[in-house]
Amino acid sequence: MDKILRIDVGAEGGPKLTTLPVGEYAGLGGRAMTSCVVSKEVPADCHPLGPENKLVIAPGLMSGSAAVISGRLSIGCKSPLTGTIKESNAGGQAAQYLARLGYAAIILEGQRKGDDVYKVVITKDAVTIEVDNSLKMLPNYDLCDKLKPVYGEKVAIISIGTAGEMLMSNSSIAVTDPEFRPTRHAGRGGVGAVMGSKGIKCIVVNPEGTSMRKPANDEQFKTANKAFLEGLKRHAVTGQGLPAYGTNVLTNILNEAGGYPTYNFAQGRYKDHADISGEAQAQLEEKRGGAGAATHGCHRGCCIQCSGTYYDKDGNYLTKQPEYETVWAHGGNCGINDLDVIAKLDFMDDNYGFDTIEMGTTIGVLMEAGVIPFGDAEGAIKLVEEAGKGTPMGRIVGAGTATAARCYGLEHAPVVKGQSMPAYDPRAVKGVGVTYATTTQGADHTAGYAVATNILGVGGKVDPLTPVGQAELSRNLQIATAALDATGFCLFVAFAILDQGDTFNAMVDTINGMYGLSMDGNDVVDLGKKILTWERDFNTAAGFTKAHDRLPRYFSREPLAPHGVVFDVPADELDKVMEF
Amino acid sequence: MDKILRIDVGAEGGPKLTTLPVGEYAGLGGRAMTSCVVSKEVPADCHPLGPENKLVIAPGLMSGSAAVISGRLSIGCKSPLTGTIKESNAGGQAAQYLARLGYAAIILEGQRKGDDVYKVVITKDAVTIEVDNSLKMLPNYDLCDKLKPVYGEKVAIISIGTAGEMLMSNSSIAVTDPEFRPTRHAGRGGVGAVMGSKGIKCIVVNPEGTSMRKPANDEQFKTANKAFLEGLKRHAVTGQGLPAYGTNVLTNILNEAGGYPTYNFAQGRYKDHADISGEAQAQLEEKRGGAGAATHGCHRGCCIQCSGTYYDKDGNYLTKQPEYETVWAHGGNCGINDLDVIAKLDFMDDNYGFDTIEMGTTIGVLMEAGVIPFGDAEGAIKLVEEAGKGTPMGRIVGAGTATAARCYGLEHAPVVKGQSMPAYDPRAVKGVGVTYATTTQGADHTAGYAVATNILGVGGKVDPLTPVGQAELSRNLQIATAALDATGFCLFVAFAILDQGDTFNAMVDTINGMYGLSMDGNDVVDLGKKILTWERDFNTAAGFTKAHDRLPRYFSREPLAPHGVVFDVPADELDKVMEF
Repeated sequence: MDKILRIDVGAEGGPKLTTLPVGEYAGLGGRAMTSCVVSKEVPADCHPLGPENKLVIAPGLMSGSAAVISGRLSIGCKSPLTGTIKESNAGGQAAQYLARLGYAAIILEGQRKGDDVYKVVITKDAVTIEVDNSLKMLPNYDLCDKLKPVYGEKVAIISIGTAGEMLMSNSSIAVTDPEFRPTRHAGRGGVGAVMGSKGIKCIVVNPEGTSMRKPANDEQFKTANKAFLEGLKRHAVTGQGLPAYGTNVLTNILNEAGGYPTYNFAQGRYKDHADISGEAQAQLEEKRGGAGAATHGCHRGCCIQCSGTYYDKDGNYLTKQPEYETVWAHGGNCGINDLDVIAKLDFMDDNYGFDTIEMGTTIGVLMEAGVIPFGDAEGAIKLVEEAGKGTPMGRIVGAGTATAARCYGLEHAPVVKGQSMPAYDPRAVKGVGVTYATTTQGADHTAGYAVATNILGVGGKVDPLTPVGQAELSRNLQIATAALDATGFCLFVAFAILDQGDTFNAMVDTINGMYGLSMDGNDVVDLGKKILTWERDFNTAAGFTKAHDRLPRYFSREPLAPHGVVFDVPADELDKVMEF
Repeated sequence: MDKILRIDVGAEGGPKLTTLPVGEYAGLGGRAMTSCVVSKEVPADCHPLGPENKLVIAPGLMSGSAAVISGRLSIGCKSPLTGTIKESNAGGQAAQYLARLGYAAIILEGQRKGDDVYKVVITKDAVTIEVDNSLKMLPNYDLCDKLKPVYGEKVAIISIGTAGEMLMSNSSIAVTDPEFRPTRHAGRGGVGAVMGSKGIKCIVVNPEGTSMRKPANDEQFKTANKAFLEGLKRHAVTGQGLPAYGTNVLTNILNEAGGYPTYNFAQGRYKDHADISGEAQAQLEEKRGGAGAATHGCHRGCCIQCSGTYYDKDGNYLTKQPEYETVWAHGGNCGINDLDVIAKLDFMDDNYGFDTIEMGTTIGVLMEAGVIPFGDAEGAIKLVEEAGKGTPMGRIVGAGTATAARCYGLEHAPVVKGQSMPAYDPRAVKGVGVTYATTTQGADHTAGYAVATNILGVGGKVDPLTPVGQAELSRNLQIATAALDATGFCLFVAFAILDQGDTFNAMVDTINGMYGLSMDGNDVVDLGKKILTWERDFNTAAGFTKAHDRLPRYFSREPLAPHGVVFDVPADELDKVMEF
């Protein structure tokens, strides 16, 4: 990981490729790389789809090594959805391959000329870019089907679907999984539109002839990595819960806690939660059988295997096992209680290239606005189809939750900084509410997953219904998460490292062994603070103030059943979250 | 003007009317009243269509008196279009009547229950409010036709069309003119949606039995008012230019100056400008004849008579004489060179209740996005029709320029703080560019009409193409305008008072005579500063910073033909505009 590939799509005579040593960005990976580059090179006041914005694709610090579960790929830019800086990360095979090829980052920059679409191919020996308009407006699965005969299944594809090409604010970047399916998405913040604005349809990453990155201190690395793996296996969440039921294990838990946003955040429990729970999903998978139905990793080297494969009633592949947030967004939030419908929506989102959270909340808003009724499965499918094709209604849907609410004059838009809230009601899980309000990313549970401590009892216990202690909890998690997002390790390691000191130390030592460092916990905290500071400074220059670190007022005004709670963490507590 | 009518639409048992003495708001009128009430009573972080926002309707300080041209009505709130504080003012008969009835303001507040629409009737003796769902979704002209048999033509109607009822961010509030036509609009900022969110379809203002407000010092008032009138008659713009050609006299002037935004601000001159100029319009009006074709006042007491009536080729009333900004927005900006089409679009905008500037710039954006081609008159008519009816495409159109651009991923959205720029390209008329960037209102030429000094040589001369001196020019004009907007005097008096010291003094003395005061120029400046400070403070609390006091970057990057100029007023100059 000693070089950076820059692609200037606006160069005279066509896109220009430049590969240079990593230079001033040496030692950065993942979110540290994307946020550092964006904060240093992108003018904060630029238009996200204009020539001054850049798309930065960066494997984590540990990607491409033998470290367990280190295959997260960070993608950063100024977000078309939020106007803030954005880092969105995905699993899939690309991070490992890029790292093994030696790339610390790929940076797409400049102003696209004309409307050709380009394909980039990266191998050990060369990088090429060529016009390939035969790929235009192909959904992600169709694109992979078209590329497979040419490049085989042993490459990774980073691509956009039709949403990204149509420059929609809700548009993801897909990364292929070990089965060469475009199921792993950098979903949030409209990063797909930024790739689309640069005219790059896909990047083919071919690792042929490369090998695992070598640790600086092999012995230390191996020992630490083994202890890290053992720690992950030992913890109840990463060792048992997630492998057994996937993330959807949370449906029943959040519903029980009264924090499961239902009917566009109108109430905290959904009458049909059991029908779409992880338990129901596991039963269905068992019944229908098929390869990888029960457990599956989003990338090779994953030891948690929280994913799976979803087959339809006839045993045909439908989609990867939908995540909790996806099931919630299209399920309880829309009053849809049919897992097959939800799986179909998940497939469509992946295929067109939409963030499933943003899509579900957008549909929820349109349901409350009366465009279609709550529970209308066919109507929801039609809305996603229209979005994927860019009809006028589809343009509203593809623009995301805040814009859809604006088009229909609806106050009830569950968004912060233009990005929709995920599957945890901030009134009943107040810690994550603080994260929604204050993260640099717009409402985002992954930026500081206080659900762990509020609901799951991981990393201590803070009562989810009281405002007390939530700001501190969110601050600590946001700092730790920013650092973790730099490593390439999956966020789910957090469950184990929060509870098990030795597992945390093992993780840090894995990094130390890889790089020949002697970091400790304080260094990790410092890295997290540095990343957040880059991000905050960018946002401040872009015009964001404390006034934007707030939930919409109605969360403080309208009580949530069953607990009758409102969001009541005081403003001055919110203002202190980023004071460090 | 010693009382305020409050209508709490969310009261138990139905909307509640309360009339109280003006109290702490005594001595305020127009924009001073609306901005003071909004800044003191509306939480800056509220949703513009939620229960915490208020709609404040206030006649000017001089409205209802015998003072010439004093019939402007201010309407204020937190804007659904911009998120800033908003004051939008209109002509028509309502300001004079409300003032004569003694109302310093009407304030609509609270949370509408259900979806009934209400009609408010104000007479000398009583105020009533009643459900009248037969008015639902009536366009403004149809509404007036329905109300005329009941209330006669001697009342004024303040109403919303379908756009306001559908809570669209581009939605105006209409005020009837002396012929009982809903041709005068508080257009900018989506004030109609705020009225719609309160469920008030219309306010019928019946002045029967009232008389002109009496001056405190009759002699002083009469003398000053006469001198003021004489000054307005004497100045070339207010005495000759505006009466002869209306505001559309500016088409040829701005085109010649290279500051006429054409094809969604792509160039500064329009090849067919002569076809839609004020001169062409006057010729057509003369040819077609009809009552009030040539000159017409938007309210009784107007001595400039810059308006007129537009008849179709068969002599039927089509609309009021379209203003320069309207002709530009639908004309040069969209590549439409047919005055009859433009007049039809103007009528449709008035009827459904859209701001003509925002509508034209929205259509321009959709043309650049390829939804319809530039110059497509039928396509433009269809878009407005869809907006008026609320189809999916209509929802995009009705949401305004910024949202339409977002839905289609277009950087070229000529907006500041979410509100579209009017008919003067800021690259070639840099003074008004400074106003667009820095006014509290979002892009708005009327907030500091530097065009006067840049292009017309009124109030001195500042070269429109140089960045030098524009900040100071805009600051002075913004202060003066804020004060003027409090008086009820039409903004067009500015041409005369900027050039003629005695006319300015006469205006101030008219106010002094009315209220028994002894204000001078400094007091006027102080009032202007006070209003701007209320507004700035509100915006700051709502999250606006200096980063929002900027034009979109592309105005500084893409040169405008024919002069090849970019917007180059330095950021630190912009930051000083509001330092006073």
